[in-house]
Amino acid sequence: MNTPVKIAITGAGGKIGYSLIFSIISGNLLGPDQPIILQLVETPMAKQRLRALTMEIEDCASSLVQGVEYYFSLDHAFSDSDYVIMVGAKPRGKGMERKDLLGLNGKTFRAQGQALNRNAKKTVKILVVGNPANTNALVAAGNAPDLSPACFSCLTRLDHNRARAIAANKLHCLTKDITRLCIWGNHSSTQFPDLSSSQVKGQAIVELVSDEWRYKQFVEQVQQRGASIIESSGISSVASAAYAIIEHMQIWTGKTASNDWTSMGVLSNGEYGIDAGLVSSFPVTVSNGQVTIAEAITIEQQARALIDKSIAELREERDAVRHLLP
Amino acid sequence: MNTPVKIAITGAGGKIGYSLIFSIISGNLLGPDQPIILQLVETPMAKQRLRALTMEIEDCASSLVQGVEYYFSLDHAFSDSDYVIMVGAKPRGKGMERKDLLGLNGKTFRAQGQALNRNAKKTVKILVVGNPANTNALVAAGNAPDLSPACFSCLTRLDHNRARAIAANKLHCLTKDITRLCIWGNHSSTQFPDLSSSQVKGQAIVELVSDEWRYKQFVEQVQQRGASIIESSGISSVASAAYAIIEHMQIWTGKTASNDWTSMGVLSNGEYGIDAGLVSSFPVTVSNGQVTIAEAITIEQQARALIDKSIAELREERDAVRHLLP
Repeated sequence: MNTPVKIAITGAGGKIGYSLIFSIISGNLLGPDQPIILQLVETPMAKQRLRALTMEIEDCASSLVQGVEYYFSLDHAFSDSDYVIMVGAKPRGKGMERKDLLGLNGKTFRAQGQALNRNAKKTVKILVVGNPANTNALVAAGNAPDLSPACFSCLTRLDHNRARAIAANKLHCLTKDITRLCIWGNHSSTQFPDLSSSQVKGQAIVELVSDEWRYKQFVEQVQQRGASIIESSGISSVASAAYAIIEHMQIWTGKTASNDWTSMGVLSNGEYGIDAGLVSSFPVTVSNGQVTIAEAITIEQQARALIDKSIAELREERDAVRHLLP
Repeated sequence: MNTPVKIAITGAGGKIGYSLIFSIISGNLLGPDQPIILQLVETPMAKQRLRALTMEIEDCASSLVQGVEYYFSLDHAFSDSDYVIMVGAKPRGKGMERKDLLGLNGKTFRAQGQALNRNAKKTVKILVVGNPANTNALVAAGNAPDLSPACFSCLTRLDHNRARAIAANKLHCLTKDITRLCIWGNHSSTQFPDLSSSQVKGQAIVELVSDEWRYKQFVEQVQQRGASIIESSGISSVASAAYAIIEHMQIWTGKTASNDWTSMGVLSNGEYGIDAGLVSSFPVTVSNGQVTIAEAITIEQQARALIDKSIAELREERDAVRHLLP
């Protein structure tokens, strides 16, 4: 049997954590032959919740789970972690300004970045999910100088999949049939889902829908998808988020489909005119676990303006946490 | 690609349904190469909830999902279903007596049994999860005269796994190391988890623990496991139930491990002195999708008394729904 790998999850006691953990122990992340040790990172407030969670993990009798570790402080958290999924983040409280939220989460991700730097493997792959995800990833990476920036990414695969689902509904096909779509910018309501290179079963989507729809209704529907789900059911998207996390990690540890890409928040080196040093969503390809920003994509004029708007927001966010960066 | 199979889920809008559906579309039930059509059965009250659920299913872009059907009435529900997982059931309301609850759920499962009889495939495999699961299965099967009673079973795999987890904690091993355990009787607080034939890595467990522990603390802990989880976290076991459902169906469509069995609620033909015509949990083996009650298990004297108590409860339950049986 293979050597177990260590998978750390912050905010393990929350709803997405719950969905994610049981998907992982079913073998969905690393397959049916890869034993795992779960590392659950939480605040001491969640101790009882994690106790119940452990009982349920035991009750699944998964042959993959070789152990479960708990961390209620960051001193030794992420010890030898191979994969880290950072789900935990403080939601915006009543009367809290966006800047306050950035600062509050920034402090948490600074401390977590320092703990990752001390304790995680140098080959670790760290996915930031907790919002504001791009800037949280920036803060964590900035405080982990011994880890390559390539160890960090943030989740925009859920946005990517939502955009595919909305395009598929418009074009009366299945979500999986939509390829070469991408999300640019911030994982926020300014994100720009780009159909300009997209295909449905090989056919260019720009030939099938109007520019008006691509740049207005489509963009708004993607940006508002999460809100629509809450509005319909009163419940936020949990399972589809967990599903996207699993896919993001599967692709990151493997490869993208040939002739397709995925969307991923990664550190910019100035590609496509996006400021170096920001974590932005880009179209990327993955091969042997190495991420490369897709090249030679034409940015239409209308797209440029929307991308710039999202990047301006990322700049503001970075400025709000600048004191937390080295 | 294989022909899609149809999987119906009642109570699809509930928490277990939510956990189950995303596990199924991840390929956990029938593997990564078997396309599926989901048939979601709910009351009209859950329409908005299912709308949100559909959006999340679309957002997963699972290549397995070939379609999603909805049934808000039973007229055409379960149309050509290959697998049916009956999760929906009314919980006990305030001031409601147990007999009232049996009657209320009995009526639902009679109507569902009739719909299964009309519409499902003759080769369908139907798992009842909603409580009182054994008696609900009895009512559904009794009202589906054209389907073999072997098409029906009820879930005791969660109890089975919980019993293994508790034994594993006692014996300081992993849950998966405990084999040849079984649950007898009703999926209720009278269930009897039996360690008399059980092994840990091949060694007889009766040699490692006292009879006192086996018949008292162990039995109570298994019976109270669900309550302990709620007590710790305020949340009932959802993910471990969904996990057990997936395992039950995997085993039922495949086979039990060699030299082991599972627990399953099936129609008794009088085996082990349990009244013919009751649905009771038994140790069973499965081969090529065919279920056989395990033979030649020695029932200890103390075990007999505990099994009899659970069977007496099943008799009472049957008597309370006799008017719903043909």
